Amino acid sequence: MTNFPSSIQNLINEFSKLPGLGPKSAERLVFYLIERPDEELKNFGQCLQQLKQKVTFCSICQNVTETNPCPICKNPKRNQTVICVVAKPQDVIALEKTNVYGGVYQILGGALNPLTGVKLENLKITPLLNRIKNNNIVEVILGLNPDIEGETTALSLVKTIKKINPKIKITRLARGLPMGSDLEYADEVTLSSALRGRREV
Amino acid sequence: MTNFPSSIQNLINEFSKLPGLGPKSAERLVFYLIERPDEELKNFGQCLQQLKQKVTFCSICQNVTETNPCPICKNPKRNQTVICVVAKPQDVIALEKTNVYGGVYQILGGALNPLTGVKLENLKITPLLNRIKNNNIVEVILGLNPDIEGETTALSLVKTIKKINPKIKITRLARGLPMGSDLEYADEVTLSSALRGRREV
Repeated sequence: MTNFPSSIQNLINEFSKLPGLGPKSAERLVFYLIERPDEELKNFGQCLQQLKQKVTFCSICQNVTETNPCPICKNPKRNQTVICVVAKPQDVIALEKTNVYGGVYQILGGALNPLTGVKLENLKITPLLNRIKNNNIVEVILGLNPDIEGETTALSLVKTIKKINPKIKITRLARGLPMGSDLEYADEVTLSSALRGRREV
Repeated sequence: MTNFPSSIQNLINEFSKLPGLGPKSAERLVFYLIERPDEELKNFGQCLQQLKQKVTFCSICQNVTETNPCPICKNPKRNQTVICVVAKPQDVIALEKTNVYGGVYQILGGALNPLTGVKLENLKITPLLNRIKNNNIVEVILGLNPDIEGETTALSLVKTIKKINPKIKITRLARGLPMGSDLEYADEVTLSSALRGRREV
């Protein structure tokens, strides 16, 4: 026996497929699960099998949702003329937690990346451009990560959107010192953004 | 919406329960899984649900198995008079991979740990002691980790086994330099074990 019993080995193989989990971590997880009650395993298995059965993408904003349109897109209290463009569904959750934003979203499904070969046509920009063309959109907020991929995506998007509607207002999230940070250790780019974006108190 | 759709959130919750996985890592795994084919999710879910249905503990050696006794215990070619005592089923796999050992095993299900309160009575030592009492066991190999928990367990086991059968041969795995290591950087304990255990070439 140089292998575990097949039902253990199969589950180890499944866990090993997940990103960031090697065979050793997978083994550890499976031996943890063996000690758990049957009920918990059954429930975990059901959640996995139901994941894709219930989840779909909102036809308007491309967010993951169980209803189409998603709760945000069909909420009459949200301002449908302001669109915040984000890369991932996780970013929507982060922004919603602030309780500051009252507009709607558009999920691109990623960001441009020349290294992994993600181009503008691989992102879901057509639904965004259609919304800008057909609806009376007042502002597009670029809620993309302040890194190379995010900046490149933002630049490309600005160019493409301006072609369709040169007068539309395009903004991006403010750059500056994050809460709780230490000015002494802030990098030059962040600190210059903080200086340039300074506001009267 | 400050939460994901429930089928996503439920699966995130299940993954978060696993040791070493926080809510953020769980989120990453679930969003990876959303992109996978239905078939893979179904299979993963089935593996989880079947894990405990098929796996049981061998009534002789306490290893995880789908047949009772396990393939090793019921193998007539294995020497049933030599028992190697290990802490976990994973240790059996590691020893089996060497293709050097022809005896049988006994799985304790852990090691003594005063910090987490694991005592000798929490380990599965009764099956081991019964085997020593009732079968004609010639040698007990202590295949425990060379750390504090393993050493403590080994000491306690030696004492308990000697009480039952003072003449039984008890051995432990050799200590020394692991393959590929650098003598210059070996710690003092390992190096003194290597010196004391030196063998003629």
